[in-house]
Amino acid sequence: MRALVKSKPSPGLELQNVPVPQAGPGEVIVRIAATSLCGTDNHIYRWDEWAQGRVHPPRIIGHEMCGHVVDLGPGVTSVKMGDYVAAESHLTCGICFQCRTGNAHVCKNYRILGIDLDGSYAEHVRLPERVLWKTSPEIPPELACLQEPLGNAVHAALVEEITGQSVLITGCGPTGLFAAAVARTAGAGLIIATDVSDYRLALAKRVGVDAAVKAGAGEAETIERLTDGQGVDVVLEMSGNPAAIQSAFRWVKNGGRVSLFGIAEGPLSFDMNEIIFKGIRVFGITGRKLFKTWYRLAGLFRAGLNITPVVTHTLPMERFAEGFDLIAKGQCGKIVLLP
Amino acid sequence: MRALVKSKPSPGLELQNVPVPQAGPGEVIVRIAATSLCGTDNHIYRWDEWAQGRVHPPRIIGHEMCGHVVDLGPGVTSVKMGDYVAAESHLTCGICFQCRTGNAHVCKNYRILGIDLDGSYAEHVRLPERVLWKTSPEIPPELACLQEPLGNAVHAALVEEITGQSVLITGCGPTGLFAAAVARTAGAGLIIATDVSDYRLALAKRVGVDAAVKAGAGEAETIERLTDGQGVDVVLEMSGNPAAIQSAFRWVKNGGRVSLFGIAEGPLSFDMNEIIFKGIRVFGITGRKLFKTWYRLAGLFRAGLNITPVVTHTLPMERFAEGFDLIAKGQCGKIVLLP
Amino acid sequence: MRALVKSKPSPGLELQNVPVPQAGPGEVIVRIAATSLCGTDNHIYRWDEWAQGRVHPPRIIGHEMCGHVVDLGPGVTSVKMGDYVAAESHLTCGICFQCRTGNAHVCKNYRILGIDLDGSYAEHVRLPERVLWKTSPEIPPELACLQEPLGNAVHAALVEEITGQSVLITGCGPTGLFAAAVARTAGAGLIIATDVSDYRLALAKRVGVDAAVKAGAGEAETIERLTDGQGVDVVLEMSGNPAAIQSAFRWVKNGGRVSLFGIAEGPLSFDMNEIIFKGIRVFGITGRKLFKTWYRLAGLFRAGLNITPVVTHTLPMERFAEGFDLIAKGQCGKIVLLP
Amino acid sequence: MRALVKSKPSPGLELQNVPVPQAGPGEVIVRIAATSLCGTDNHIYRWDEWAQGRVHPPRIIGHEMCGHVVDLGPGVTSVKMGDYVAAESHLTCGICFQCRTGNAHVCKNYRILGIDLDGSYAEHVRLPERVLWKTSPEIPPELACLQEPLGNAVHAALVEEITGQSVLITGCGPTGLFAAAVARTAGAGLIIATDVSDYRLALAKRVGVDAAVKAGAGEAETIERLTDGQGVDVVLEMSGNPAAIQSAFRWVKNGGRVSLFGIAEGPLSFDMNEIIFKGIRVFGITGRKLFKTWYRLAGLFRAGLNITPVVTHTLPMERFAEGFDLIAKGQCGKIVLLP
Repeated sequence: MRALVKSKPSPGLELQNVPVPQAGPGEVIVRIAATSLCGTDNHIYRWDEWAQGRVHPPRIIGHEMCGHVVDLGPGVTSVKMGDYVAAESHLTCGICFQCRTGNAHVCKNYRILGIDLDGSYAEHVRLPERVLWKTSPEIPPELACLQEPLGNAVHAALVEEITGQSVLITGCGPTGLFAAAVARTAGAGLIIATDVSDYRLALAKRVGVDAAVKAGAGEAETIERLTDGQGVDVVLEMSGNPAAIQSAFRWVKNGGRVSLFGIAEGPLSFDMNEIIFKGIRVFGITGRKLFKTWYRLAGLFRAGLNITPVVTHTLPMERFAEGFDLIAKGQCGKIVLLP
Repeated sequence: MRALVKSKPSPGLELQNVPVPQAGPGEVIVRIAATSLCGTDNHIYRWDEWAQGRVHPPRIIGHEMCGHVVDLGPGVTSVKMGDYVAAESHLTCGICFQCRTGNAHVCKNYRILGIDLDGSYAEHVRLPERVLWKTSPEIPPELACLQEPLGNAVHAALVEEITGQSVLITGCGPTGLFAAAVARTAGAGLIIATDVSDYRLALAKRVGVDAAVKAGAGEAETIERLTDGQGVDVVLEMSGNPAAIQSAFRWVKNGGRVSLFGIAEGPLSFDMNEIIFKGIRVFGITGRKLFKTWYRLAGLFRAGLNITPVVTHTLPMERFAEGFDLIAKGQCGKIVLLP
Repeated sequence: MRALVKSKPSPGLELQNVPVPQAGPGEVIVRIAATSLCGTDNHIYRWDEWAQGRVHPPRIIGHEMCGHVVDLGPGVTSVKMGDYVAAESHLTCGICFQCRTGNAHVCKNYRILGIDLDGSYAEHVRLPERVLWKTSPEIPPELACLQEPLGNAVHAALVEEITGQSVLITGCGPTGLFAAAVARTAGAGLIIATDVSDYRLALAKRVGVDAAVKAGAGEAETIERLTDGQGVDVVLEMSGNPAAIQSAFRWVKNGGRVSLFGIAEGPLSFDMNEIIFKGIRVFGITGRKLFKTWYRLAGLFRAGLNITPVVTHTLPMERFAEGFDLIAKGQCGKIVLLP
Repeated sequence: MRALVKSKPSPGLELQNVPVPQAGPGEVIVRIAATSLCGTDNHIYRWDEWAQGRVHPPRIIGHEMCGHVVDLGPGVTSVKMGDYVAAESHLTCGICFQCRTGNAHVCKNYRILGIDLDGSYAEHVRLPERVLWKTSPEIPPELACLQEPLGNAVHAALVEEITGQSVLITGCGPTGLFAAAVARTAGAGLIIATDVSDYRLALAKRVGVDAAVKAGAGEAETIERLTDGQGVDVVLEMSGNPAAIQSAFRWVKNGGRVSLFGIAEGPLSFDMNEIIFKGIRVFGITGRKLFKTWYRLAGLFRAGLNITPVVTHTLPMERFAEGFDLIAKGQCGKIVLLP
């Protein structure tokens, strides 16, 4: 089969012909219908410092996907041939404290698809049955493959109630845009999104935010006005940008909450008293609740969740380089590859 | 001013001319823009056993209202002349355990507008400033007056998360219909509503339920099919009907929740083990959280909550008898009176 | 090995010599150090209607146990030879909605040790590794074997906060007594326990309740006095007795909570409005959270939890009939068998 | 009456004779039985930069107190002559969003006793009735006056469940010591406390921590060993010290929680990713929940809460300077003044 392989410890990916994987006990082979580009994949593509320390070539990368079950290993009972599935990309250990107490998303021993084992930028992928998520056939592949990152946004937005509340989303990358769409479907009363990119702010408008505000000069005055000087009930920090993090803690109301999802590049100067004097709750968001978030996500699609505007490009797998270039330029939402 | 007065201990109401009330310290006079009929008012109108024991004529009744502030008593600071307001109808004591721990809606000493003091079926009403709720001028009076009963529905629906979940609403009276609209706006994944009345089921469709199911023969098969035999995550019991209560506990999933709002006529035969073996949570819903529910409600309107279909009749105040007759026949949603 | 076998469909148990079980993949053999009698075992012993419909002889019964790992099947990684373990008695499916969303204790397909597979009234038992719970060697076997039913009490008591709150426990059977001990260790401010049995009330005093109140005449006056007429924040209903259930809902404060654990014999007459008008939360309690409750339980032992007074009898396994006779007479707390 | 007055804008306090205050409408005069020294009072005493910007002499300072009601202004209904009371020191506005949604402790307009109005370092104090807290006569004045700061500790410790959990308390000042006592009474499974002061660590042992660990060299190894390398479920950060804050986020388990109470002196270098990748919850703790925390606190006393070791000095009011000197030297727990 064809696959995008990180074949050597240097930038780039190689389109190779490799053997189709075989299903062992409890494993399943999925024929990929669609797979999408994630920031993590871009790090591996660029071969930055983080990637050099974490990924061991050769490796088929990619972890956001959907497809159909085409082979079942011994003992598989929860899916059957032909099932349309996506996959949780975190393969958790099942026996650590976190796994045994409902927090498998922060398992201390988890392995990641496309990093610790071969991933989804390929015509087929091998997966343990327990990470599979049966998906409604009404969701087309170019959206169904996005359920994994969409799950991050659902986790960030719904970690506490959001219905009827005012929300600030700092950062309109794909997960920020997903979060905006989720907040809209969940009945948030006011949604303000900020970003430095006009391209992304335009996408934010398309997923239904009430106000898309350019970060920087004038931002504070605009948010002040939009919130009648009261700030917001909920902040979803989706950027990792130091200025955005400042905004997050500035604009959350006393007694409100902040979900932190965007990853900062190292330590920053921060006044913990902003958390204390405001009496707020801060939630660290990583991954998705297994599988509570996935069920919620399925319900959101039924409720009319519209993430279509976030998919700005759909490319055949061999045009992957084009996709990574668009990411580098910031001129895209989500990019989907079709094998 | 004109007012509808329960003038003597017998059925009916009398349209009388009475003095406009005066505002004492901390009190406000509101000129009524709209006021609506509630089941409680109907009990008082019919002068049933409950009403005979609870209401002491003469009394201006009515407790669902909105209007404009036209006079301020000494010391009032939180509202000003001309403000457009609705009112929490429960006048809580402020010093009991419940009031001091965030549960004022179950205050042990509360008094009710239109029962323990003169109410809103009049051109003016006197209210303590602390029960007033400033309302957006974008909400027209015939909807703004409904915020009090709408608050019951918000409390029932949002006492725990509902976004992305499957919901069964048993009972499509006005509060059940409100709850359906709230669940829709809050992003519920599937909403099934049941009732015995075709009239009410038609209204349920208009507020956006996925399925409006006639209670009785065939109900179980339909719900079984709609939920793939899994039952629902959330039940909102809005009827008080014994058969509906049975349905509520039958269809809730293991680990799900039931909000009980509809008031039953006395004890019924119930198997507590339905609660135990399913490991569910049951919430008793009465009144609204002061004022958390009101804030949520304001946000829901901003999010697009549509309760317009529930208002089936708007009448001048003097045609009140017509309104109570419609209630008796069950051929109405909410009936609004204009003074 | 010796084992207590339900050898035929009639009352009683038979002490038999049977083969030691063999560990299959993912399975473990545990040499029993202690095992205890549960109400369920008593139903099977008496061979009542429920048992006749649920248990298929021959079957080694018993599901409350502790012991040491003496054999490991292929692929076992989470325990090792010699480990001191107890076991979760519910063998859950792992793939249903409940199992995948943190509610495995209400798994729709679970099997029970000592009912659906051979149990712990034996010298050895075969168990899947995933149900094992490593236990501190500081906890002696006659207490360690009680962790499974103790888990029910922990789940009932701690489903919401109890620290600093007033608590009524209706029913002082072993699980009620465990719940009293848990509430004490968790810092409940006032603990009142009720029962009809003087024997059990005496045990309640020994686990540290503030007041042990005889159910029946005078009960209401005593509780009224002990709670200054305010009722209690928390009720743990551990009896299933209709009069106790009435008490539970009578004495819970407006805005309080009731944990229902005791199983009633069929439907009873109940006024749902008690739940509604009080604005309370009712929790159905069955089993234990896998494995959140078990971790909590380990911490409670470290915190000084004292359940020793609940173990009133320790017998060699062959004297099992004596144990069941004590249960029939109600003259016991927990009875532990030593193989 | 005698009172300690900040009479001019410079360091120190003056013992003066001033008129006894008069009770206005809704106000009460309390004869002080005991009052205690807080860090805030020390800032005012030293007249540091914060104090210079916040306090306007002349002002009687002090806000931790208890005493007896000796005069009632017009309209007071919730207390009576002779009642033994403490007081919530935050006088909240009652009408802001926070006050109306159960978060009055972060009221946007609150005034503080002993800063914005005359305080408790005096023979009498005037207070609005609504801030009074009736206290059990079984609690002696030198403990009853500590309920306000104890409330901070209760809020920090019990903002989420702590029973049966492992806890790290960073900082053994009075509030840290209170938190340790609360965690002990609430049934925490393991309590580790850290501080740089041997004096304070000795006090920590006396309130019942399992391990009192000297902060600095060797601290990490000790905590690693005490927690079997797993870290803790709960961290209560009570110091505001940058190294302690680092420890807090280092030792909290994936999926755990951190309560932040100690106030840092300005921004510090912090890696927000510690919150994100661990998937933790961080709670900003300021003040006490009105009045939920106070009720919880009353229950904790009934449950046996022992804070006596924290009161290291009791002085007549005129020896106040001695007290502030002890604070400067760090050779004290709580210091109580008797007027």
